[in-house]
Order: sequence, then C-alpha cells, then structure tokens
Amino acid sequence: MRKKWLIKGAVLLAGFAMCAGMAWGTEGVRISKETKECLGCHESMPGIVSQWEDSAHWNAGVGCFECHKANKGESDAMDHYGYTVSIIVSPKDCGQCHPRESQEMGASHHAEAGNILNSKDGLLGQTVGGEPAVAVGCRQCHGSIVKTKADGTLDANTWPNTGIGRVNPDGSKGACSACHTRHRFSKEQARKPESCGKCHLGPDHPQKEVYEESKHGILYRAFEDKLNMDKPKWVAGQDYYDAPTCSTCHMSATPDQPVTHDVGTRLSWDLRAPISKRTDNSAKKLADMKDVCSSCHGAPFVDGFYMQLDGFVEFYNNKFAIPAQEIRAKLMDEGVISKQDFDDRIDWIYWELWHHEGRRARHGAAMSGPDYAWWHGIYDVAKHFYTELLPEAREACERAGKPQVYEEIIAKYIDGRPEHQWFTKGFDPKQIENIKEYYQDRYKQEVK
Amino acid sequence: MRKKWLIKGAVLLAGFAMCAGMAWGTEGVRISKETKECLGCHESMPGIVSQWEDSAHWNAGVGCFECHKANKGESDAMDHYGYTVSIIVSPKDCGQCHPRESQEMGASHHAEAGNILNSKDGLLGQTVGGEPAVAVGCRQCHGSIVKTKADGTLDANTWPNTGIGRVNPDGSKGACSACHTRHRFSKEQARKPESCGKCHLGPDHPQKEVYEESKHGILYRAFEDKLNMDKPKWVAGQDYYDAPTCSTCHMSATPDQPVTHDVGTRLSWDLRAPISKRTDNSAKKLADMKDVCSSCHGAPFVDGFYMQLDGFVEFYNNKFAIPAQEIRAKLMDEGVISKQDFDDRIDWIYWELWHHEGRRARHGAAMSGPDYAWWHGIYDVAKHFYTELLPEAREACERAGKPQVYEEIIAKYIDGRPEHQWFTKGFDPKQIENIKEYYQDRYKQEVK
Amino acid sequence: MRKKWLIKGAVLLAGFAMCAGMAWGTEGVRISKETKECLGCHESMPGIVSQWEDSAHWNAGVGCFECHKANKGESDAMDHYGYTVSIIVSPKDCGQCHPRESQEMGASHHAEAGNILNSKDGLLGQTVGGEPAVAVGCRQCHGSIVKTKADGTLDANTWPNTGIGRVNPDGSKGACSACHTRHRFSKEQARKPESCGKCHLGPDHPQKEVYEESKHGILYRAFEDKLNMDKPKWVAGQDYYDAPTCSTCHMSATPDQPVTHDVGTRLSWDLRAPISKRTDNSAKKLADMKDVCSSCHGAPFVDGFYMQLDGFVEFYNNKFAIPAQEIRAKLMDEGVISKQDFDDRIDWIYWELWHHEGRRARHGAAMSGPDYAWWHGIYDVAKHFYTELLPEAREACERAGKPQVYEEIIAKYIDGRPEHQWFTKGFDPKQIENIKEYYQDRYKQEVK
Repeated sequence: MRKKWLIKGAVLLAGFAMCAGMAWGTEGVRISKETKECLGCHESMPGIVSQWEDSAHWNAGVGCFECHKANKGESDAMDHYGYTVSIIVSPKDCGQCHPRESQEMGASHHAEAGNILNSKDGLLGQTVGGEPAVAVGCRQCHGSIVKTKADGTLDANTWPNTGIGRVNPDGSKGACSACHTRHRFSKEQARKPESCGKCHLGPDHPQKEVYEESKHGILYRAFEDKLNMDKPKWVAGQDYYDAPTCSTCHMSATPDQPVTHDVGTRLSWDLRAPISKRTDNSAKKLADMKDVCSSCHGAPFVDGFYMQLDGFVEFYNNKFAIPAQEIRAKLMDEGVISKQDFDDRIDWIYWELWHHEGRRARHGAAMSGPDYAWWHGIYDVAKHFYTELLPEAREACERAGKPQVYEEIIAKYIDGRPEHQWFTKGFDPKQIENIKEYYQDRYKQEVK
Repeated sequence: MRKKWLIKGAVLLAGFAMCAGMAWGTEGVRISKETKECLGCHESMPGIVSQWEDSAHWNAGVGCFECHKANKGESDAMDHYGYTVSIIVSPKDCGQCHPRESQEMGASHHAEAGNILNSKDGLLGQTVGGEPAVAVGCRQCHGSIVKTKADGTLDANTWPNTGIGRVNPDGSKGACSACHTRHRFSKEQARKPESCGKCHLGPDHPQKEVYEESKHGILYRAFEDKLNMDKPKWVAGQDYYDAPTCSTCHMSATPDQPVTHDVGTRLSWDLRAPISKRTDNSAKKLADMKDVCSSCHGAPFVDGFYMQLDGFVEFYNNKFAIPAQEIRAKLMDEGVISKQDFDDRIDWIYWELWHHEGRRARHGAAMSGPDYAWWHGIYDVAKHFYTELLPEAREACERAGKPQVYEEIIAKYIDGRPEHQWFTKGFDPKQIENIKEYYQDRYKQEVK
Repeated sequence: MRKKWLIKGAVLLAGFAMCAGMAWGTEGVRISKETKECLGCHESMPGIVSQWEDSAHWNAGVGCFECHKANKGESDAMDHYGYTVSIIVSPKDCGQCHPRESQEMGASHHAEAGNILNSKDGLLGQTVGGEPAVAVGCRQCHGSIVKTKADGTLDANTWPNTGIGRVNPDGSKGACSACHTRHRFSKEQARKPESCGKCHLGPDHPQKEVYEESKHGILYRAFEDKLNMDKPKWVAGQDYYDAPTCSTCHMSATPDQPVTHDVGTRLSWDLRAPISKRTDNSAKKLADMKDVCSSCHGAPFVDGFYMQLDGFVEFYNNKFAIPAQEIRAKLMDEGVISKQDFDDRIDWIYWELWHHEGRRARHGAAMSGPDYAWWHGIYDVAKHFYTELLPEAREACERAGKPQVYEEIIAKYIDGRPEHQWFTKGFDPKQIENIKEYYQDRYKQEVK
C-alpha cells in the first residue's frame, strides 16, 4: 500500500514538474514565448483570450501552446505557422497536469457514453433518424468518434463536438470541456447544475428538471450566491450548507469522502435499465451517498427516504416493468408481432414506457421531484400500460387470429393480481361514492 | 370588538412570553442549555446547524429544543437521550410564536390539500398507480397522514414528508417547512417563485411555468436582486416595484392590505374545476386582487385584463367544458360507455381535457402566459375535443350499436352552434384563399 | 451618399432638439410641469413611478407627458383632466427620440407578426379555437390590431396588449415595450434571454429552451453577473466575453458590425417554413452571423458547425418534410382526403410534423441544443412519420376504397429509398445482434 502511494506521489511530482516546466522555463517568464506568439495572432478572437485570462490556467502560466502543442505523427497534428499543434485537447493532454481527474474520468461511465451507437438509441438514431441527426443530436452529448483528415484537421461530421464520451484522435475517451467549458475551465461553472443539465434533461432522463423542482434545486436558486462555489476546497456542510448541486451528491467532497470525477460511484440503483437492479458493490455506493445526505439530514430522514425510494423502485419493476417486458416477449414468442424492434406499434409503446416514462418516474423518486415521480412518471406509465399496451396487445392478437394469446396474458398478468384488479373488475363502488361527495363539496359541481 | 382584540392581545403576549421564556430564561443566556446539548451531538450534521445559525430563529434564541420538545403522551414523542422530543414540528408548534400565520394557514385551502385521496386524483394514485407511487409522488405535495410507531418514531411510508396539507400526529394540518425550508425558515426563500413551484407546476397546474413566461416572471429574473426580498416589511410598490412574485399577488401586503397566509383570498374564479365558477364572496376577492394590480397598473389596464380573462373563462366553459361533460354524461346515460371512471378511452380523454389542458389554458390566461393559454391550453383542448373526444364518441356509439346517440350529440352540440360549425360544414373558402396567399408570400412556398 | 448622411444627421438633430425641448424647456427645470402634474395624481400607482425614476428616461427628463401626450383628432386621444393624452405610446412616438431603432424595428419581421391572422395559425386560433382565446393567447405575442372607442379609450378585446407586431391606433406597427418593459425601458432587461423567451418558447418554436440547454445558455447562467449587460456600449468579445445572449447573436454589436433592431438580418436559413429554404441575400446574412461567432470561435469551429447544420437541414427536408408534404398532397389530389385543413386526421399529423416537431429539430440544431435536435425534434418527426402519417395514409386509402394510392406512395417514397428501407425491409440483423450484446453488458439484462 505504501509503495502504491510512493508511485502515485512520483507521478504527481512528475506532472507538476512538467507543468512548471511549461510555464516557468525561465525565471520571470510567466507566459511562454510560444503562447505569446499564439496570442499575437488570436487577438482577433478576443472572447476566448479573455476567458483564458480569467482562468486558473493563466494564473499558472498554462497557455495556448502548453495545451494545444502536439507531436508530429499524431493523427490530428497540424502544421500551424511553423508550430505543430492539434485542435483537440484531450483528457490525455489535460491529464499531464491533472492525472487523478483524468484517470477517474477515464474509469467512469461517462467515458463510455460514446458507445451509445450499439443500443436501441443508436439503432433509432442511425436508422429511424439518420447520420446528420446523430451528428447534431446524439453525439453532442454522447460524444463522437473524432475523425481526422490527412492534414490533421478534423472531419466536420465528427467535430465540433464536446460530448462527454468523445473518442479522441489520441484514443483517449471523454472531453473535460464538456463540463469545464473552454477557455475558462472553471470549477465554479462545472459545479452548477446547468452544466450537468446540458445532457441530463429531456423526456428520457430529466435529472435537471427533477432537481429544479426538488427542495434541493429550490434552495439552490434561493441561495446560489452563498454557496462559495469558486472555492477550491468545497466540502458539503463545511464550505457551504444551503443547498447541494448535482456535483455535491455525485462528485464532491464531504468531511469523510474525497471528490471524484468518476460519477456513478455513489449510485446504488441502476435506474436507467428497463428493469431496475442494484448496481455492483451497491452497499458501499449507498453508504457513500448516505454520507453526503448526512451533512444536512438526520438518519431517520435518510433511512425513511431510502425506504420510500426502494419501495417505489420495486413497485415500478413488479407492477409495470416486468409484466410489460414479459407481455411483449410473449407476443413475439407466439408470433403475434415480429421479433424486430420498432416495426410494431407495441414496440414503440414498450420502448417509451421504460426508456422515457419509467425513467422519469424513477429519477423523480430518486431526486425528490414529486411531479416527475407521478405526473411525468407513473401516471404516464400506468396510463400507457392500461390504455395503450394492453389494448394494442389485444388488437394485435385479434389481427393475428390468436385471441387466446391475449386471454392468456390477461389471466396471468391482470386477473390474478390485486394491483391490476380494477382494470377488469372495476373500482370499489364505495370509493366512487366518496369521490362524488368530495367533488360536490370542493368544486360545487358533480364530477362524473 | 374591542374585547376580541384584548383577548387576541393577551394570547399574543402569552405567546411572546413563552418564546421569550424559552430563549432568555436566564439573563445573558442566549441559547438554552437544552439546545446547547442538542448542538453538542448534532455537530456531525453541520449543514442544518449552520442553516439555523443563519436564521432569524438563532437571532431570537429559538433553538433545537424550543421547537422539537414534546410532551410525554403525544403520539410522536420520543425519548432521546433523556429528553422528550418529536421529529415533526407542526404548525401548532410554530403557532406558539406565530399564532396569526398558523391560524391563517389552518383556515386556507392549502391545509386541506391532504384530502386529495378522496378525488379522481386519489383514485388514480392509489388504484391505477399504487401506494409507493403515492408516497413519493402525490403526498410529497399534498401531504401525508403521518403515522407514528409505538416508540414515537415515524412510519417511513408517511415520512419524510413536507406536503403542504400534511396531517400531523398532533392533528394539526400543514407544514410550515413546505415553503419556509428548514432549518433557515427564511422569508426571502419562501417569497421566491421557486418555492411555490415545488408543487404548482407540471401538466395539470403549470403556474410556475406560466409565471416564468409572463412579463412578471421575466422582470423577476431581470431585477431579482433589487426586490429587497429579505425585508420583513415588504409592501408592493413601496419596498419593491420591479416585479411581483407569486407571493406578491396571492399573499403579501399592499399599502392597503395586510399579508395573509390564507392563499386563495384574492381568487375570484375557481380555475381548477371541470367547469369554472366564481368563488364564494368573489367580489371582495376580486377587489383585493385588483388592489395588488393597482400598485403598478392603471385602472384601464386592470379592467381590460379582467375583461379578457372573464371572456376567456366563459368561452372555455361554453365552447368546450360544458359540452364535453354533457356528451360524456349522455354516453353514460345511454349505456354507450360504463358509468365508471378510467375504464373507457373517453374517460381519459375527458379527464385530461379539463384536469390538464383546460387548467393550463385557464391558468395561462389568468397569469398572462400566452403560450400556455394557447398552445398548451386551448390548442390542446380543441384538438382533443375535435380529434379525440368526438371521434371516440362516434366509435363508442358504433361499437355499442347505437349510432343514433352520436347523431343526437352532433345535432345538439355541434351542428346547431356557430362556434363548432367548421367541424361539419367546413371552413370559409375565402379565408382559405387568403391563407394560401399569405404562405406564398411569407415562406415562398405553397402550404396546402 | 454624403447627402443621405446629412439628411439623417438633420433628422437626428431635430429629434434631439425635440427631446431636449420637452425636458429642458426652461433652464433648471428637469421634469416638465405637465409631467409633474401627472405624478401628483399617479402617486397612487407607486410601482410605475418608481420604475420610471430608475430609468434613463428620468435621467433625460423624459416623463409621463412627453411620451403620452397626443394631438386632438388622433383616434386614441383622450381628454384627461384637461390634457390630451393617449394610453398607447407607439414606436412612432418612441421614434421621435429613437428614430434609428424605430425605423429598424418597422422594417423587421417582428413588425409583421400581427399578420398571423392570415395563416394556418390564424385559422386555428379563430375557428378551431375562438376569439377570446386569440385575445389572451396568439395576440399577446403577435400583437393585436388595437381598436379605439369613441372617447379615445381602448377596446378591451384588443388591449392590454404588448405583442411585438401590434398595429397601433396611429398605424405604426410594433410595441417597443414588448422587450423594453415599461416603465423602466431597460437595455439590460431587454438583452436578457427571458425577454425574447416571452414568445420564443413552447412546442412550436422553443428557442428559449434550446438556448438554455446549449453551452451558450449554460455559460450565461454561470456568468450572468459578469456580462456588463447595463453598458450602453456592449460589443461582443470586448465588453463581455463569457456568454452570448439571444441579443448578442441576433441584434447586438461586434467590433465590425453595428447593433440592429431589425432581427433576422443574420439568418441565412428560414427554419420556420414547412420546408427550409435559404433566406434572401443569405450569403451576406451568414457572413454577418459568422462575424459574431468569430468573437469567440475559430474558423474551423464555425465552419464545422455550419456544415453540420446545413447537412441537418437538408436531411430534414429530404427525408421527412418534402415526402410528408407530397404524400399529403397526393392523398388530396387522389380524393382520399379532403382538400381542407384540419378536418382529416392526417392534416393534424402533418401540421405538427413541420410546425412543431420539425421546427424544434431545426432550432435545436441551429442553436446547439442536442436534446431538442433529437428527442423533441427528429425523434418525434420520425416516430410520427412512420407510426402516424404512413399508417393513417394507409387507413385513409382503405377507407376511401383506394388501396392502390397507398401502394404508389410506398413504392415512390419508401421502398425506393435507402433511408427508409428499414421500414419495409427490416433492420440489419447484425446490428440487432450487437445491440443485444450491448444491453446485456450495460444493463445486465436482455432487452428485446
């Protein structure tokens, strides 16, 4: 163990030395002569120069050339007025000074985001959509496989791109500037929920929207200026305590836990999959997340929250996700629908049930956004399960001349189960009577 | 009358004395010894301690023990290291120092929000959805009926919960922390639109979204820092004048009107019901709201606004809401569909027509959000009335072998009415010709 | 040319003299006696008086009377306690001191926004919707044709209204206060993205939402306070460089380009029309926009961005927009559906395909919002093209007894085209196999 640390220390020292070498090669020279020459011409792009001047990089003497210099032979190396440079600064480049961050990012789920092409999403994007839509859509979050042309310039189908799982010409994965937007590379900006919200939003994973409607997001908007977000040391409960951002819970430090750029290390449920399962090593991950919660919440609160969440995820799985998956599988197995994706109406219904609505429900529950847990979530799941999936299954069976398949489905998944009983047996008449009285009282009108 | 005030005065004095007694039992002792002991252990939750230190409560010497202390025998009283405390601080507890606010809240519609269970929403939540979805969804806004266990701890199915209509173990209704988030209990935070937006958002009552797109919300974002939102006295037009928040119009003081925690006292229309009606005592409520408007708007503006709103609500009622309700009722009465909710397709169409789309339209109009009044509102109402409700009625009648029922519906609700005439008689050909010319000119292409 | 400038100079001088005359008629009198008299009574509307006191108008001595005075005989001139005034201050009035801004606005697309009535939108609003919905919906963005009553007061069906294309009683078009909200008339406020977002949002043109999720919007939220938005001179890259707002790209100055109130002068594509075309004089417009981009971005980035955008627009046109339009036209020509709008189901599908979803896709691509380009955009376009438009065309042909029309459609638009091949020929089995492996690996479960 001690040996491991010694090695790590040596790597870090080497990194610092390299950085130092870049910036202060000669005493008193803050900005390298190469960077000065870059700046001479690039004055015509005043914005990025000013951004850099406001960055910690300027302070550290890390300039244009230090990041953009390249070695001849690298596929994206270009000759640029006598210098060999590349446009893309990859995590490998950043890792020269930031080895730990680069390594954590490389090990994270984020780094694999470019693999989206081999998924239903990928099939949709490329086939149902098309390459140009993938270029400006999917890949701007997931990352492109950047292709270079013979002269080192970049193929415009694959760049500009700052997707988090970008596959760079040097083989490294990711884009630090996906969150630390160039050319300020600001900690503060990356800690803001909007930074994560570039990609974590929308119909299929509305984490930004859920956060905004949660108490956490409400408090963030109220006390944003009091969170000391520009402090290098940023420990929850110590350096700030009014509200957490995405970063607080998923990445940042607590009194007992270091910051990490490997997102996902505190997630004990996989809430993205069709059917949710515990993640690998989930007990450790759960403990690490609870450690964050406990900066502001007592144990009964945290435990109560997780009991509600766990119950909700099981409920989603058992009432809707598993039956929906099995019903569709049975329709395929019985030859009622084809085994191909997206060519039967029920394929689309099932897909949005788990990939859009079921995720919204689960993310809403996991991040305390009740409107997403219910209206954008289970309400949509349930509505479409009962009014789309089942009726479409019935019609598909009828069209295929196999009505008995639907009868088997109903017998197995609906009639036998108390949670679905209302669908075939009707509501409890007493409950209906109560409701009518309620409406009469509340709205001064009968609501049939 | 004078006697009443004397009694009120006595109650207030007693309240202050109680508060004072808690905090300054011994001269020079700012924080009670009990609270000091709480703080000794709870240092490990630094966030909430720091929040409290930033609160007016700290300033007033009101600490952990003063709010959380309980009497033995209360159902949520727990023995906690020798002290008798309860986790939940209810409006009854807060009312010891804040009797007026507590009383107003208790009399408000907010306090009744937990009654949602006896409504169509409740039926949906519990039956079509399920208990775990209600716990993390509905109840997080509406409030749970908090259940205690034998040892005074709280049942995790019903807590954590800060829903505005929470039914507390002491029988009081509501949760002050629903808006004044613990442990800062900040006026400023509660006045921000995001605080209301925790619940007043989404497909069925998007007040937050409407506000944000309105001039009021636009100005709020532009001048948020100039609104003196932390001032105890916060009178519209005097202490701030650049923008109103939700609180301004529905709760806060004007030069002639006190602040109230009984929301709803300025609402002259019920815009939630299937068919909108005037509220009880609506003339007084309207006058109170117009008094708020007049801080910044002249009488012609305010009167013009209400003429547009009133016209719009009548239009919604008469063109869509009443016919839709009567058409569905007729289908039930004629035995075309069942009398039960949510088991016929038309039940769902009708439900979203008034509960989602019709509310969006009305809230959009009432709060000056044109995109909600039209695109998310009447556009959806009209589209679904003509392309879902009527076609589904026709098909249901055909399936039931009663096509004459649909003919009667069309004769009564559509053919006889000029506002629906286009549906069966077609558009005015001259208007169509104009449109073609317009598109040719604007888009340089024919738009069929 | 020189003569033209002399004339312009004279006009400007006259304008200034007029303003000066209003304010400083007698030396030492900052606020005119008429305005002082206005203020005497209007103290009861403290909000707008305070707003004005914070405005540049107060500083310039331009008060109530200077803007609201009217000449007898003007249709909205009212006698008001002995003064002749009008409620509406039109761009013509503002143009007395701001001739250039008024003229640019008058020449812009914005000024024509009230013409919406002669469009499908107008048909929808007036017929499918209704007049009261148009008053609180459509017209609040597009502008009403303001009608006056005999006494000069304004018809409440047409006012209050600050729609950008308002047709004023004096015949001028527009409302400066649509963006520069009265009575502050602030540059800073008008430059904020929320100001544009009052109208440029929602299902049919979500520019605000796209901006917010783009890097530009993310940086705006992070560095809003550092943008010097209150500076009269506000040149991109010089006076601010951390983020652009809507105004930056579409209206504001660069080192080489003046500010303009004629929005649209930098737009080289028409992304609103059913099928996108280049705008008139698009090369100049594109060059002007690229000039803005180059404040912060290098040429390879900007050129790459536009290559992706252009490819995307062509793809949208050719894969979906043109075929959808031609398929619907064929159904009309063959007598399968009526030639009227909105009376066949396919009319609604086609309308939302280009007017809502297709715009979302194109705006998402044009402003770097990947979630809009894909999920709210092409995903919806493609889904509805394949699962709504084509199936509905098939059913309509069957209902009309003309199944061969659908066969012709498929032969011409689907089977012959590689981009649609999957729809009739199925997906590549190898791709499907890859996907199954991917899901097995990622989610630890088979995803059929």
